[in-house]
Amino acid sequence: MIIEKSLERLGLALPDLEQFYKSNPSGAKFVSHVAVQNVLYLSGVVPIKDGKPFLRGYLGKDLTLDQGYEAARYAAVMSLGAMKYALGDLDRVERIIQLLGFVNSDPGFKDQPRVINGATDLFVELYGERGLGTRTAIGCHGLFGDFPLEIVVTVLFSGTEVRAPMPRDGRTLAR
Amino acid sequence: MIIEKSLERLGLALPDLEQFYKSNPSGAKFVSHVAVQNVLYLSGVVPIKDGKPFLRGYLGKDLTLDQGYEAARYAAVMSLGAMKYALGDLDRVERIIQLLGFVNSDPGFKDQPRVINGATDLFVELYGERGLGTRTAIGCHGLFGDFPLEIVVTVLFSGTEVRAPMPRDGRTLAR
Amino acid sequence: MIIEKSLERLGLALPDLEQFYKSNPSGAKFVSHVAVQNVLYLSGVVPIKDGKPFLRGYLGKDLTLDQGYEAARYAAVMSLGAMKYALGDLDRVERIIQLLGFVNSDPGFKDQPRVINGATDLFVELYGERGLGTRTAIGCHGLFGDFPLEIVVTVLFSGTEVRAPMPRDGRTLAR
Repeated sequence: MIIEKSLERLGLALPDLEQFYKSNPSGAKFVSHVAVQNVLYLSGVVPIKDGKPFLRGYLGKDLTLDQGYEAARYAAVMSLGAMKYALGDLDRVERIIQLLGFVNSDPGFKDQPRVINGATDLFVELYGERGLGTRTAIGCHGLFGDFPLEIVVTVLFSGTEVRAPMPRDGRTLAR
Repeated sequence: MIIEKSLERLGLALPDLEQFYKSNPSGAKFVSHVAVQNVLYLSGVVPIKDGKPFLRGYLGKDLTLDQGYEAARYAAVMSLGAMKYALGDLDRVERIIQLLGFVNSDPGFKDQPRVINGATDLFVELYGERGLGTRTAIGCHGLFGDFPLEIVVTVLFSGTEVRAPMPRDGRTLAR
Repeated sequence: MIIEKSLERLGLALPDLEQFYKSNPSGAKFVSHVAVQNVLYLSGVVPIKDGKPFLRGYLGKDLTLDQGYEAARYAAVMSLGAMKYALGDLDRVERIIQLLGFVNSDPGFKDQPRVINGATDLFVELYGERGLGTRTAIGCHGLFGDFPLEIVVTVLFSGTEVRAPMPRDGRTLAR
């Protein structure tokens, strides 16, 4: 539970993904995660703080770079919530493999990487070198609910036990 | 052939990818699929119905949400055509691992996930829980031929035999 | 060193990624590559020629299709620089698995695939059938430094030795 203690020290609460899915049913047919051997694929996540959307709008118009950075941090926290649900203990994350970041961008906004730094900085604060993965930051054009960004994270984990994927619509899977 | 029978019952024809590639040569140097162990990576696919583009334009301007949903359904059918080509039998698909969906979006369109539901709903209609994978829905800005969306699907499969990847330009590979 | 000789014959210099990272520090917390078994994930790369940005701007407004094609070629060269750093010898690349291409696109630009051909054509010039991977070409809306495109490449490699990932901020990792 080392990583969770670090998260607490940073004043960040690990979201309860199950509770979040139940209180925000979308009806969409997808799951929190899928594990293939020791690779954990996560669904795209958006910035949520205390169970509610954290900031909305486009970078370069509605939001400043600093706001985008903070939003990316909270998206990373959401992805940690999914890892916790899947693995039970965040210490089992061995390495961030890949992070694809999509930033809602007004014409002329060119600082997508500095926005996504909010996510990758947090992973390194928590995991040190294990938090350094490959990365891509792309300007996009429209995201659900006008969220400012979405990140797609894939990680390598140790051990073999993985919880059954949690469906977005709140149902429970057999395994 | 259970999945193919279900597809038939839904009134959907499995596309013949080989025929489609031959009759729509693009000259581009890529292939239908690449298998790494039991993970099958597919090239991005667009909505095609009866061998022809199904709808064109931007969501939020040229197309309604319902049209986008149906387009996503036909993109999913195209990805099934690629899986059929690679695996011979769609029953060998064990799990949708990842779906990245890109929706051509006019400024202000925020319903990308409801569009991509057209693809994920079909996978679950056909595969049940095995059709539930991780998902991401992003608004993009420009796709070939003004297609409304493109999806990139990765699946887990059983068994070991995989057909040689089919080049987009219609050539045949040794293996 | 067969591939490197072919690259030379094409008049293309393999970039020294280490030198490039050191002379262009970004402070961002990510690495050049992560290997999981025999799959090498690379960070997104942009077009760089002789250590400097190669073209800037949007396709369909600032840049022609031919310019975009050439930019994609140089992005592919950058990804080869990362593979060389990771594997020591480009001959160890067994197969391009996946290429995700994002093209900065002005409204109305629909030729993203013909732009990305610049990258995939080069891979096939160098690697023949091994250079044929899955592909996706998406129009995006904003990239760091106004680069015209970014590609995310994943490859399969032979052998087991992989160099420690190189952090983008120029530090050295233990392993």
